[in-house]
Formats: sequence, structure tokens, C-alpha cells
Amino acid sequence: MDQKAPHIDWISQFPGLAGMEAPVRERLTAESTIISVPKGTVIFGPGKAPENLLLLLAGTVRVHQTSESGRDIVLYRVSAGESCVLTTACVLAYEDYLAEGVAETDVQAVAIPRRVFEELIAESPVFRRFVFTAYSRRITDLFFVIEEIAFRRMDIRLAQKLVELPAPGGVIATTHQDLAAELGTAREVVSRQLKEFQRRGWVELARGEIRITDRDALKALHADG
Amino acid sequence: MDQKAPHIDWISQFPGLAGMEAPVRERLTAESTIISVPKGTVIFGPGKAPENLLLLLAGTVRVHQTSESGRDIVLYRVSAGESCVLTTACVLAYEDYLAEGVAETDVQAVAIPRRVFEELIAESPVFRRFVFTAYSRRITDLFFVIEEIAFRRMDIRLAQKLVELPAPGGVIATTHQDLAAELGTAREVVSRQLKEFQRRGWVELARGEIRITDRDALKALHADG
Repeated sequence: MDQKAPHIDWISQFPGLAGMEAPVRERLTAESTIISVPKGTVIFGPGKAPENLLLLLAGTVRVHQTSESGRDIVLYRVSAGESCVLTTACVLAYEDYLAEGVAETDVQAVAIPRRVFEELIAESPVFRRFVFTAYSRRITDLFFVIEEIAFRRMDIRLAQKLVELPAPGGVIATTHQDLAAELGTAREVVSRQLKEFQRRGWVELARGEIRITDRDALKALHADG
Repeated sequence: MDQKAPHIDWISQFPGLAGMEAPVRERLTAESTIISVPKGTVIFGPGKAPENLLLLLAGTVRVHQTSESGRDIVLYRVSAGESCVLTTACVLAYEDYLAEGVAETDVQAVAIPRRVFEELIAESPVFRRFVFTAYSRRITDLFFVIEEIAFRRMDIRLAQKLVELPAPGGVIATTHQDLAAELGTAREVVSRQLKEFQRRGWVELARGEIRITDRDALKALHADG
């Protein structure tokens, strides 16, 4: 999945790197590579430490955590124009880490080797700010995940998720398990709530799909929250 | 709360700083101050950005988040021998941040000014590793908070908390509100569960205190989880 970087000006796709000192900019371009990662690839995870900091040019990486009991929580997604700093630091510094990053779509990314990353941190105030800003955004994301899971009613969160998900022809292709991971709860909780929505005539359930039959009702429940 | 650092060798209290380059070590000692913060002081929070990175010599800082609905979640605690890096980065880089750090006890800490922090990051590989390790530990803490809130049964978590809290003479001095913040849930959830524990004869409830009457039963519930 490695190929040498063609000389495209990818730096301009990352606003946080604007104003980067010219020599640093040149080194960053010269010493990083652009990689393509097919959908479904595990980019990092337990036993698979990333050797590179990734800056995403296209696609999405889903970062999720698997609990000891084998259940999944989606922690956040990294999108084009963003970096994977949080997990890089985790894996660089600390072993006991169960989160995993998976290419949710085909992904194109700039890979900055660890050595270059360290040099840039040392030499470039702009790069430092870029990295610390990315950290604090991810941490803020995690705080929101915590708040959502702790305090927002599950029926409202599930209704909101159903309204948001792509539903070509009114049908969402998903499993109760995947919805549970998105919402940070157990599959049984999602199944129970979906059955209640079905009883109210808002959805129809079938294997691997959910047909939305009353989108307005789902939206209204969301608005009430 | 500021006083000039006496020449005590506080660096040895932070294992991550062992092996620090001698000139960097001297600068760090010379340019930081040791501060005392009385119990209850808000050290940082919304509208109160920290100007210093704090390394704790004694005491505990509780970092908690207040949701839009006014409810509290305890995110983590910083103890002696640890640093406040996570929140420093957040407040340095990004405005939209609702967490607050409060001295839970009288606190003694080394305060490293922002300018010195930046210089050390630039110049010292040991300091960089110290900071990134601290980041990844805090992030791992947050992942555990998420997992706990999402997946562990509230009755078991509450029983465990009651067993852990100091209970001189068998009495825990706390409110349902404080317990709810610790557990990342709503006060009503805690009150309902405590009443159930009281019904089973495990605790007796009074204003501002909880008397443990069957510690073994609480422990057994915990062990079953």
C-alpha cells in the first residue's frame, strides 16, 4: 500500500499547516509518502502499532474500541483534512491500548514517518500547534461521547441516528450490533428500542435492514429531546 | 498562591523525567515555580485558561465536565507524580471546552510556564516522551470511562463505589448528586438504586450520608459482575 508521493500540494488541504515555515514544508513534502488503503483495512490496533502519523486526504477512518466482553464502541471518525494524532500518541507511548482504526471507505492519506514527526515537533511551532490542536479536538470528541452515553436518552439517540443514516428508498442497511456500537450500548438495548419503534409504526424490521415508515415521528422524538 | 521554587529535587518524583538532559533539567528547575493551592480552588475551567502546565507533588485534582443540562461527570483525577497535560493542550489550542479542574485536597504542584513548556517540547526528547506518555494515559483513562458508562451494570458500579469510598465508622459522607457525577449518570438513577440497596438491608440512607450495613453483600454483587 506504499507509493512515493507525487508532487501534489497536499499541505494546502490542512488549514492548520498554512503558514508553515518554508524549509519545514519542503522537508515534510519530501519525506512523507502518499498511501492508498482499501476499505476494510485495519490501519492500527492491538499488536499493530502505526509507524506513521496519517493525514487523511480522502475517505474516513473509524476508530473503535472493543471491550473485554467483546463489545464495540465507535469513539470517533477521522475524515479528509484531519489527522490521526490521538491514536499515534497512544500507540507510541503506551502499550495497553485496545482501540483500533479501520478504513471505513477507500482511504488516501499522507504518511509521516515517526522520525520525521519527532523532528517536525522539535523544529516547527506551526506543526506543534497543528498537533496539539488536533489532540484537543479529539479529546473534546471523547468528552462529547461520554456526555452522550451518560446523559442523553437512548430512545432519542437511536431515533436521531436512524434519521441521520443513509436510507436509499427508505431502507437503512445495518445490523442491531452496528447500531449498538455507534451508540455505545448493548445490542439488546437497541433491539428492544427498535421493537418499540416498530410497535408504534415508525419502522419495519427485517434481517440486516430497517425500513423507515414514519420519519417525521422519529424526527419529532429527536426534537423533543 | 505563587512562591519561588526552593531548590528541592522534585524532578526525581517524576519517573518519566529521569534521564533528562542536564542543561534542560537545570532550566526546568530554574524556570518553574512551586505553588500551593488550597482545597476547593478551581485551577482551570471555562473562561479560566491555565497559563502553566502543572506537575503534582502532593494532593489530587479532580477533572470534571459539566453538561449543557448542568449535570456533572468526573472524567479523571490527577495525583501526585502526574501531570495535567491533557487539559493544558485543550485550553492552549481550542476554546470550546467545558471541563474544569478543581483541587480536591490541598495541592502542591510545580508550575511550568507555557513558554518554557514549548521550549522543552522543542529541545528535549525526554520531555517530549514524558508529555506524550501522559497524554496517552489520560486518553486511555477516557476510553475506560466510556466503556464503564456504556457497558457495566449500574448496580454493580454503585456497589463497587460504595465499597471503595472512605467510610469512617461505616458511614460515607456523600450526596446522591456526587455519586452520580462519579458514576457518570443521573442523580435519580443513583437514588433509585440506593433505595433498592436499602430495601435489601445493605445500606441505611440519611441526608448527606450513607451507612454501610452489609459490606459483604455489596462486595458480592461486585464480584458477580
